[in-house]
Amino acid sequence: MTSKSEARPHDDTPAATHAFLQDARTVDVALWLSGLKPDARERHLAALAPARRATVFGNLPLNMQVKLARKMPSADLARIVTAMDADDRVDLFNRLSEDDQTGLVAQLAPEHGEDIRRLSSHPEECAGAIMTSDYAVLEAGMTAEDAIAALRRQAHGAETIYRSYIVDADHRLAGSVRLHALILAAPDTPVTQLMESAPVSVTLDTDQEDVGKMIARYDLLAIPVVDAEGRLVGIVTHDDAADVMQAEATEDFQKISHVLPFKQSMREAGIGVLYSRRIVWLALLVFGNLFSGAGIAYFEEMILAYVSLVFFLPLLIDSSGNAGSQSATLMVRALATGDVEMKHWRSLIVRELSVAAALGATMAAVVFPLGAWRGGADVALTVGLTMFVVVLIGSLVGMSLPFLLSRLRLDPATASGPLVTTISDATGVLIYFSIATLILSP
Amino acid sequence: MTSKSEARPHDDTPAATHAFLQDARTVDVALWLSGLKPDARERHLAALAPARRATVFGNLPLNMQVKLARKMPSADLARIVTAMDADDRVDLFNRLSEDDQTGLVAQLAPEHGEDIRRLSSHPEECAGAIMTSDYAVLEAGMTAEDAIAALRRQAHGAETIYRSYIVDADHRLAGSVRLHALILAAPDTPVTQLMESAPVSVTLDTDQEDVGKMIARYDLLAIPVVDAEGRLVGIVTHDDAADVMQAEATEDFQKISHVLPFKQSMREAGIGVLYSRRIVWLALLVFGNLFSGAGIAYFEEMILAYVSLVFFLPLLIDSSGNAGSQSATLMVRALATGDVEMKHWRSLIVRELSVAAALGATMAAVVFPLGAWRGGADVALTVGLTMFVVVLIGSLVGMSLPFLLSRLRLDPATASGPLVTTISDATGVLIYFSIATLILSP
Repeated sequence: MTSKSEARPHDDTPAATHAFLQDARTVDVALWLSGLKPDARERHLAALAPARRATVFGNLPLNMQVKLARKMPSADLARIVTAMDADDRVDLFNRLSEDDQTGLVAQLAPEHGEDIRRLSSHPEECAGAIMTSDYAVLEAGMTAEDAIAALRRQAHGAETIYRSYIVDADHRLAGSVRLHALILAAPDTPVTQLMESAPVSVTLDTDQEDVGKMIARYDLLAIPVVDAEGRLVGIVTHDDAADVMQAEATEDFQKISHVLPFKQSMREAGIGVLYSRRIVWLALLVFGNLFSGAGIAYFEEMILAYVSLVFFLPLLIDSSGNAGSQSATLMVRALATGDVEMKHWRSLIVRELSVAAALGATMAAVVFPLGAWRGGADVALTVGLTMFVVVLIGSLVGMSLPFLLSRLRLDPATASGPLVTTISDATGVLIYFSIATLILSP
Repeated sequence: MTSKSEARPHDDTPAATHAFLQDARTVDVALWLSGLKPDARERHLAALAPARRATVFGNLPLNMQVKLARKMPSADLARIVTAMDADDRVDLFNRLSEDDQTGLVAQLAPEHGEDIRRLSSHPEECAGAIMTSDYAVLEAGMTAEDAIAALRRQAHGAETIYRSYIVDADHRLAGSVRLHALILAAPDTPVTQLMESAPVSVTLDTDQEDVGKMIARYDLLAIPVVDAEGRLVGIVTHDDAADVMQAEATEDFQKISHVLPFKQSMREAGIGVLYSRRIVWLALLVFGNLFSGAGIAYFEEMILAYVSLVFFLPLLIDSSGNAGSQSATLMVRALATGDVEMKHWRSLIVRELSVAAALGATMAAVVFPLGAWRGGADVALTVGLTMFVVVLIGSLVGMSLPFLLSRLRLDPATASGPLVTTISDATGVLIYFSIATLILSP
């Protein structure tokens, strides 16, 4: 296939558009189509040759695939779906209504219908849901020559033949072999002599994030997925695993900034989606704030006597919250990448104590002259001491919460951010005015 | 190679340790060794067979490699370095002192010495710095049969032979071909007929994040790197690109939580590193806070007259900051993944205006009864109105800043977080007490 490197038509002429649609990389065509108005997209897509149309269609964002699929006659859809990769096919299938699913399966060849039903039966976010059934399989009794012949027959359907999997008579995974090794070997070498036995594998219910971590750790092209009996049922390829890791990181970004996770692209997400994903924590944090508000109400007398204390309130609360969110984010990310595990919590807390004390001391030194300037020595002492304590507490809370939430089998990313904010606010107010009472009260 | 799936020795006996060191996957051995005390690590490493020692060594964290390398006789180090992948070799080389570099190059075979010098000359964080010179190359005049024979000769050194690159007489990249295609073709087919011409490629100075995005977009195994004249100089493989994307995401997590980026693992980073990376923004934010403090000082009279206003101050400032950090984080991430580009800013700001207005209205409705409870109708109106305005402003600032910083060729992730905090604090205080003055002043 000859492919040009332009990612859009040269100019607006029909000829340039036609040339682009015919010759450009299918990924680029899909990307360009996804920026067009729906009817232009449909028209250009319909004009493509069937095989190319299927590939371009498979590269469109899932939401668009679903919208297009709903409008399409089911025979047309079946032709496209048949030509798609098995895993992309299932992603689309899972988003269709039950009626559309039934209509589609009726139009598919029986083996594709069964495959799609089987793949779509696995729970989301697990190996079973992101695997593909397009893998190359060899039998344990084959020679290198048999194996290459078998791969030639499977080459068209399989996502990769660079690594193929060897199964026993019960389809249990026995090993894997590189195309590399088959080609370099003498033709009559048994594949069992060339294979790596006990290859790294995952089970159907392995979390997709762990699948991604395994592929990254062992630098794999693909990882085999086995069922409870050890039978090979699919593979997850490196590109899909990389997509999963990207999506999981995006989800963690959303969570630590107090946004409920959503899967749409930021460009496509509607006002309703963004509103509903953002309002929940914003509103809940109002109630968290009642604690700090109550603290302030309790110390009303003190505030009236020393109104300059209010000057430092946002600063102290922000500093505590910032220190806490630093620790929490570092920990959430380290847990997500596997850099840190539960068992490390003790040594990390000890280290955090030193880091936080140093941060708190520095911040106290920075804020002390400001306190002296605004309110004299007593206020300076109050503000400096408070700063030290709240930065220390904020950091320790920020570091501990992700571990604690993991321990309770909750997602550390979801709740760490809001809880750190609420806890550092409430303790900040209490500590500030308590210290003020101690130092400033006559 | 037979490999067991245990990631650590069965038990503490020397026999179990020996079996693990001999048979386990090199990645797992390296991972296990990296958890040991330095002298135990050195001892076990020294006991490994040379080839295996080199692979295990290459899988250790870079910091440990450097420490081990410093202690090792340079002849031993040269043996290990020769057996390492070209890109891992350069990463290590770049971290050595100039004396150690010279000592090492003197011990290497001339072609390795030149290769290492050439690879290490490229600026960091670019394609040139993460590429490897271990790629399979074919000449344009070859047939499929010639090509397979050439690949057999190169198979040992190349990181992948599944995709090989075809160059002209000047070593300019002409196309790429899959092993797949070579095997399925008739032996006398010219490779130029089988190749994909004008393959996706990057240049030496392409940013590593863009390299990762290209590999992900086109689902590549590897991407060729060319110099300014279009000559093939290396490839970046999918596993290294995935590592880069992970590292870049981690860096963005650090930046948005006000931490200057650092590359060490969270487990290994020392107190000094963590302190220095965290204190900078914490301390700078104190000065940002002077603005809100000045605002509070200006409105001291108002506060003394209506002390219940202080009750809502943390809540209003937090809500504005939270709404701002939601928008900023979503934008920073969308810009980093390529989901959103500069050209989309206009439509996104318009949408954000609606989302922010809805968020602000909801938050105002939530806080209104609290205001009525604490201070009556006027305070309720003041607090509700302020909440609407500060959430709106926070969101718009959060969404606009990443675009603005990108426009100014600054990193949107670095400054968005702290700026959002400072701006939403300062404007929050001013707006709150200005509205209070309007509504509450007699």
